[in-house]
Amino acid sequence: MSSSTPLDLDRTWTYGPDVQHGGRLLELVVQAALGEVTHADPLAVSAHFLAAPRLGTAEVRSDVLRQGRSVSTVHAQLVQGDRVCTDVTVTAGDLGAWQEPVASTGRPPVLPPVQDCVSSRGDDSPRNGISEQLDLRIDPATAAWLDGGASGAEIRGWVRYTSGREVDPLALLCLADALPPVTFSLGIAGWAPTVELTVHVRARPQPGWLRVVQRATVVAGGWFDETCEIWDSADRLVAQAVQLAGYRAA
Amino acid sequence: MSSSTPLDLDRTWTYGPDVQHGGRLLELVVQAALGEVTHADPLAVSAHFLAAPRLGTAEVRSDVLRQGRSVSTVHAQLVQGDRVCTDVTVTAGDLGAWQEPVASTGRPPVLPPVQDCVSSRGDDSPRNGISEQLDLRIDPATAAWLDGGASGAEIRGWVRYTSGREVDPLALLCLADALPPVTFSLGIAGWAPTVELTVHVRARPQPGWLRVVQRATVVAGGWFDETCEIWDSADRLVAQAVQLAGYRAA
Repeated sequence: MSSSTPLDLDRTWTYGPDVQHGGRLLELVVQAALGEVTHADPLAVSAHFLAAPRLGTAEVRSDVLRQGRSVSTVHAQLVQGDRVCTDVTVTAGDLGAWQEPVASTGRPPVLPPVQDCVSSRGDDSPRNGISEQLDLRIDPATAAWLDGGASGAEIRGWVRYTSGREVDPLALLCLADALPPVTFSLGIAGWAPTVELTVHVRARPQPGWLRVVQRATVVAGGWFDETCEIWDSADRLVAQAVQLAGYRAA
Repeated sequence: MSSSTPLDLDRTWTYGPDVQHGGRLLELVVQAALGEVTHADPLAVSAHFLAAPRLGTAEVRSDVLRQGRSVSTVHAQLVQGDRVCTDVTVTAGDLGAWQEPVASTGRPPVLPPVQDCVSSRGDDSPRNGISEQLDLRIDPATAAWLDGGASGAEIRGWVRYTSGREVDPLALLCLADALPPVTFSLGIAGWAPTVELTVHVRARPQPGWLRVVQRATVVAGGWFDETCEIWDSADRLVAQAVQLAGYRAA
């Protein structure tokens, strides 16, 4: 039961030399995949990034593995020509209404007010697709890398869409890879290609600014892990992500 | 480029009413998948568990998505009859020799000596496939649930194979789901089916006992996250995992 959905990859979500934003690609693939099942909310999404797609046409090939009562699972691939660029599996369900946790050990990151953070849209910032689409405000305590410094294995900040789009569960897939790589805050400036990204969506976000924190545990031998937590304006953990990415020491 | 590898699912790794151990299934699927590419080490593995396979014959269907120079990616499914039980994608590479981290923020869990921990093979413990295969020693501070109590959203302990098998990167996939679910330590006794499990293998383990710690951040609305870290005898983080699983309140 395979089906194909056409995609047009334009400059809307690019950075650098026309590189598509990985989180946005994930959102697009999952959106197409969820069109094949009755469940609308991505609960668990895992993605392997094999190749960077070029600008232009591509397609999402979806294969429904199970349409169940409480959850459904779809395997989907972003394909360009005969090349698989991204391989994704999504388990979807219904997030339902918010329920008070039985246990919760996390806390939202503590950030200065939005206006005291470093804007991704400031006069000195590079303009690209992502800075057109997202309003990021980085905690200055984790932004020393902007001046060539280093602060540690954590970057945190506020995020919202510049368009005013409110964040739904699909958008969380994009925002789970929205902040700069945590290697930047360690003073490693190079590109950090994601090999694998897993996102677990835990709740429907409330309207307003989201708080995002990314951390690394071990950066060694060319590889690093990056966990990401996204908290909404009601202090609820709405998404958790983990990725394995590569880096190249300067 | 699909290929099929037969599997015989026996009682070696079962618990409860002949339920196969999820981590062991993951190891078997990835072992078959890696037979198709030149890279031997699983770096990033993501798995969605759709249905519990029955005892008996099954097959792993592997599809090589990319055979690259530094990494390769394979999509594989555990299939029984016409039912996909587990959907897995693995990015494989070469872990190489250990390299000192550029940054490391984690610490191994602090555990009492092995002989002061609670053995999974004690006189009072249920005997099943897993307790035949694995020697687990749970930190008593996180084992109150064994006496009907609760201690918090963390379980930690020592683990090794009863057979004397040393732990290789493939085995880490199994051990990333070896301890009881962290919901147990919260006093939630029921089965905790894994929906999605992602494992990132970070280093080849040194011989000896491994230390494992599992934690939950949010347990709410029937779902919980469980992170797992595995540390080797040389105090190196050798694997990180995260899963989304279900629970049913008593």
